Amino acid sequence: MKREIGELVTNAAERRVPTLVNGRRQVPFRGVGGYEPRGSKHGPPIRSCRDYPADGDKRVAGLREALERAGLADGMTLSTHHHLRNGDRVALYALETAADMGVRDLMWFPSASFPCHEPVIGLMQRGAVHHIEGSMNGPLGRYCSSGRMRGLGVLRSHGGRWQAIQDGEVHVDVAVIAAPAADPFGNATGAFGPSACGSLGFALADSIYADRVIVVTDNIVPFPCLPWQIQGNNVDYVVEVESIGDPAKIVSGTTQITRSPDRLRIAELVARFIRDAGIMRDGFSFQAGAGGIALAFVPILARMMREAGVVAGFVRGGSTKYLVEMLEQGLTRAILDGQTFDLEGVRSIRENPRHVPTSPFTSYNWHGKGNFASMVDAVVLGATEVDLHFNANVVTHSDGVLLHGIGGWQNCLAARCTILALPSFRDRIPVIVDEVTTLCGPGELIDVVVTERGIAINPRRQDLLERVRGSDLPIRSLEEIKHEVERLLGGPPDRPELSDEPVAVVKWVDGTVLDTVWRVPGA
Amino acid sequence: MKREIGELVTNAAERRVPTLVNGRRQVPFRGVGGYEPRGSKHGPPIRSCRDYPADGDKRVAGLREALERAGLADGMTLSTHHHLRNGDRVALYALETAADMGVRDLMWFPSASFPCHEPVIGLMQRGAVHHIEGSMNGPLGRYCSSGRMRGLGVLRSHGGRWQAIQDGEVHVDVAVIAAPAADPFGNATGAFGPSACGSLGFALADSIYADRVIVVTDNIVPFPCLPWQIQGNNVDYVVEVESIGDPAKIVSGTTQITRSPDRLRIAELVARFIRDAGIMRDGFSFQAGAGGIALAFVPILARMMREAGVVAGFVRGGSTKYLVEMLEQGLTRAILDGQTFDLEGVRSIRENPRHVPTSPFTSYNWHGKGNFASMVDAVVLGATEVDLHFNANVVTHSDGVLLHGIGGWQNCLAARCTILALPSFRDRIPVIVDEVTTLCGPGELIDVVVTERGIAINPRRQDLLERVRGSDLPIRSLEEIKHEVERLLGGPPDRPELSDEPVAVVKWVDGTVLDTVWRVPGA
Repeated sequence: MKREIGELVTNAAERRVPTLVNGRRQVPFRGVGGYEPRGSKHGPPIRSCRDYPADGDKRVAGLREALERAGLADGMTLSTHHHLRNGDRVALYALETAADMGVRDLMWFPSASFPCHEPVIGLMQRGAVHHIEGSMNGPLGRYCSSGRMRGLGVLRSHGGRWQAIQDGEVHVDVAVIAAPAADPFGNATGAFGPSACGSLGFALADSIYADRVIVVTDNIVPFPCLPWQIQGNNVDYVVEVESIGDPAKIVSGTTQITRSPDRLRIAELVARFIRDAGIMRDGFSFQAGAGGIALAFVPILARMMREAGVVAGFVRGGSTKYLVEMLEQGLTRAILDGQTFDLEGVRSIRENPRHVPTSPFTSYNWHGKGNFASMVDAVVLGATEVDLHFNANVVTHSDGVLLHGIGGWQNCLAARCTILALPSFRDRIPVIVDEVTTLCGPGELIDVVVTERGIAINPRRQDLLERVRGSDLPIRSLEEIKHEVERLLGGPPDRPELSDEPVAVVKWVDGTVLDTVWRVPGA
Repeated sequence: MKREIGELVTNAAERRVPTLVNGRRQVPFRGVGGYEPRGSKHGPPIRSCRDYPADGDKRVAGLREALERAGLADGMTLSTHHHLRNGDRVALYALETAADMGVRDLMWFPSASFPCHEPVIGLMQRGAVHHIEGSMNGPLGRYCSSGRMRGLGVLRSHGGRWQAIQDGEVHVDVAVIAAPAADPFGNATGAFGPSACGSLGFALADSIYADRVIVVTDNIVPFPCLPWQIQGNNVDYVVEVESIGDPAKIVSGTTQITRSPDRLRIAELVARFIRDAGIMRDGFSFQAGAGGIALAFVPILARMMREAGVVAGFVRGGSTKYLVEMLEQGLTRAILDGQTFDLEGVRSIRENPRHVPTSPFTSYNWHGKGNFASMVDAVVLGATEVDLHFNANVVTHSDGVLLHGIGGWQNCLAARCTILALPSFRDRIPVIVDEVTTLCGPGELIDVVVTERGIAINPRRQDLLERVRGSDLPIRSLEEIKHEVERLLGGPPDRPELSDEPVAVVKWVDGTVLDTVWRVPGA
């Protein structure tokens, strides 16, 4: 498939990137902090109360009517959100309704997609959806890698998605927001209801900047829906449906800590590093996701904090019961929560005023007046690959196939200490490589790589090396760990067979193009 | 003083208004709902985290440094807010600092001004302040009326102020926000601290849309300041000062109900009208301010609700202890609070998640996708004058002198039943007149006038007349009450001696010009 990509140029990270993406001129990556934005934030159309019901009741008969009234038309951008994760029913419902209406060539702009969205492949084949800009996890990523999607995929971090909307790079024509509870005016929350999912922060940018905003709920409540995270004053239509999602797949009943001894060892090393490097001190902060290692790390660090009598100033979620326990036991003064992963997280966000739902605006938007990410003392992240320059990849595997989104990963690299917690190999494929298949995070922002075989500290962080000197932590070089793994597995991984045809780009947090995802023949 | 006013034209309310105000072309009032806005909301400049401290600490040495860094220069617009009411020390501090810096010709854009701001007259005389757009209560209003202010005053409602900022009619260069508590990142709340004032909603528009935002606090707290109503992500600089205000003048210790028998009778009649007209039913809503009659009305209505077993869906503040009692006694499901008037209100907003700080965006902005004001079943307001067409005035007295701001008054006229609760005369001057001195609210939006001499229902509201037919309420015509008062006082009030020189304009909620305030010779 031929896509207009302008030309391929080499950016500041020595990566070849297209200058034209889906009809829009691009700025190649200029280095961390190298790009100075100009201009003004996007101003959505001015509306008037005279065109909205005075009684505040914005309910319409169904999603089709809402999309029609919103003026959904060929070639428009329709956005949805991933709070309901793999249990989401709303995104597909919206896209299929649009297809039934005969609308063609939509750009789907999800905050992330999940395996449950695999049927969008059919909508792309039928022409209803032109392409996707947003994380493509699993089947959609593979479809994109195969080169069959008409436009280019654009992979953005959560903060990058806010930035793109705010800066007017992506104009959202119609936003469809799935809400576990909403009132007829459109005030909405994820804190309660049969499909409660916690924070709705990923939909906030769309609610503010989209031309038209539709709230879809299976749980209408009388005005005012409290607390509201989405404000009805930004909402055009409210649609009631039977069910917005499958609760069993929205949040875990309980999140499970890994039982893998190697991964538990990594979690233990991460916690010890944070303690022994002096990061774990009164008032400090950390962020850890909901991956197996990150989950296991939290209770270990909590134990160390308890032993040392240390209380965190705040912790950043993805929240789980392990963070909630810390809050309830007084080990942290607050949870600033971007995404709620389990039922305990949902309960806490509903009950505890110090468990605060946040958004990519507060936490991640690079084109703001600061954000929370850079105030975090230590963040624990994963990666699919890391190279000897500490560059890391989170979107493709070593076979080059796109399988994951960026999430908040890039944004979190702004933390004072960025720790990648990784097994040194997966499925007998080494994770430490000579050069990452896709560059998602520049090595200068990655401070520490913790594997089950030892801890590698970025030589740029002499201060950290200094601080753990003399500790009993297994500090090693990345090269040393890499060689050990290659000896064990019989050599470095095969380089993937990639075409020279871009299928997606990876944006940096400032909207510049950091790298290209290439078509994988046979994907 | 000669001001460029273009020409005087007659608008849809038959009022003569200038076509040019402070250099900006104006749209004359076109009737209620007659103006259709076009264009896009204002987009403030895109910023980048690279230009803000990574540790989130935005504190600078003092307000002067903050204003200098913000680039404050001649002719710019500087905004402040009136949460601290007559106890505010920050607005004057900001303007005097600007004057000390040698800055000239500022437009001061307060959300309201109070007698404590009288020294701004000196700053206008010295040239540091060019003119004021915003409510001018007391001495500043008289100064404006005298014709000595260089520019035209522009009087906007709280919702109109949001609309003007949002629509780009007023470009705020630098916003200075007084915060009873703030963290070094700029997250701020009015819920606690030595100068706690409750909601900070009036500063929200400025925080979002101004080029530069400075938070001034006397109570710095560790990040994260919870709950935040002003978001640090919109803030450029944080300044610590000894004191932002005089707590004794910020909120009342306790708000006092009127002891005037006439006013108590009016309050009783208002409550009886709301009950007997069937407005007081389960799930209904009302709004009442902090004036003596409105205050007295609340506990009377609360008693009637208790007797009838009725619970309100929500009530809108200005909150006082009387609304707080209703919330705590289960007589309302929520308080949606725009402004907090006493210490009990402040306590409640801090402690009770169903006492919600709101903003003019949620409540009043006419250029939004609906707002709360039109969802209110009954609102109880005051006025300085009302005429036989139910037109009302809130900014001037019958002598033509500007003495009050509009506040949320115009916005509240969107309620389903708008009730003016007024003594029929004040200081022996009749309140019901042939024609209001200044038109602030078109009579078609005012449904009921309640005086101590009886209740007049707007003939447009036959439904209300129908509903109270047969009740023992003293329903009379406005003419009848007017004649009775004039007989008592010896005739209608003297018409004021006004010049033909505009000194200020009254904006309608949609940004059009509703009326003109004329210079008063000798004021």
